[in-house]
Amino acid sequence: MSDDAQPKRSRRSERSRQAILEATRALVSEVGYGTVAIETIAARAGVGKQTIYRWWPSKGAVIFDAFLALSEGTEGQGVVLPDTGDIEADLKAVLRATAAEFADPEFEKPIRALNNEIINDPGLAAQYHEKLAGPVDEAKKERLRSAQRAGQLAADADLDLVLEVLYAPLFQRWLLRSGPLTADYADALVDATLSAFRP
Amino acid sequence: MSDDAQPKRSRRSERSRQAILEATRALVSEVGYGTVAIETIAARAGVGKQTIYRWWPSKGAVIFDAFLALSEGTEGQGVVLPDTGDIEADLKAVLRATAAEFADPEFEKPIRALNNEIINDPGLAAQYHEKLAGPVDEAKKERLRSAQRAGQLAADADLDLVLEVLYAPLFQRWLLRSGPLTADYADALVDATLSAFRP
Repeated sequence: MSDDAQPKRSRRSERSRQAILEATRALVSEVGYGTVAIETIAARAGVGKQTIYRWWPSKGAVIFDAFLALSEGTEGQGVVLPDTGDIEADLKAVLRATAAEFADPEFEKPIRALNNEIINDPGLAAQYHEKLAGPVDEAKKERLRSAQRAGQLAADADLDLVLEVLYAPLFQRWLLRSGPLTADYADALVDATLSAFRP
Repeated sequence: MSDDAQPKRSRRSERSRQAILEATRALVSEVGYGTVAIETIAARAGVGKQTIYRWWPSKGAVIFDAFLALSEGTEGQGVVLPDTGDIEADLKAVLRATAAEFADPEFEKPIRALNNEIINDPGLAAQYHEKLAGPVDEAKKERLRSAQRAGQLAADADLDLVLEVLYAPLFQRWLLRSGPLTADYADALVDATLSAFRP
């Protein structure tokens, strides 16, 4: 590629990457996973189709990266949970932030659209677990293991179950719009989860 | 109506009612809440449109009754949870049955179709809570209140939160196909919930 040799390539590449990820999320919201096409993403992001294919092998790959980026830090360093040594405080900070994000219509819209596709497509659900939910859950479990070592969580707790008890009520409330997503609610879920799996 | 005077009317009415509810569930699975029409339900159930309108005021009303019937006893006596005096045993019996139902592709199919509509339609979600989820949750909370009186559950527990911690992980696992829906899993959810909200 001729622009590989240009100065400021790295910053320009990062701008293109972000534009592609944003266009992808917007288009999944608007037209759905099935209908969105690489051509449409390229046009919306103002890049050539080849730019997308240089970085991602398939439509599925760019879509999952677009959603994974929502879970990552602004520096793009992947998902890491805070570890101050106090599992209750750390989980409350994380769950309050999650509740606030899901209560934000602009933030939640593409995620709702993606969930809608996953619910109807077992193959896409499997990809979602492998590429997106799996790595995010692994980062959360890393923090839970630290709490187990600190004696703040039962050493024999099933960490998949811990994550489900902690997050599934929030997911259900959000998805079915069955109740408010407040900081108090986030705190109550952390309290219930830590009581359920105390050492 | 001329057939009101016929013998065996009650049994025939019940047969028609069941045929209508079954046809409704099948059609919601096949074509979705938005597309299903009273005419199509009547044709599938082998009854006249007027028979449906005699018993239900609207399409929404017959659809929610069709799904509510899935939660009711075979005698149609409404939702009642067992109360043997042992909350752990009773919840495990109920949650194992729920897990087995949701693991059954034929049983879960219309419920998945309905959830799919609810997720995208806040108005329908509100109706769902009022007509379907609300009454079922009330029956479950009745059993939890009995456990509170028996000292098996914290007297100040938020019963909506208790139900979310108990059921939302199962709902999420089923909806996203993220894990097996086994009796062991049902038991683990009951154990976690009772630990979280013990007196």
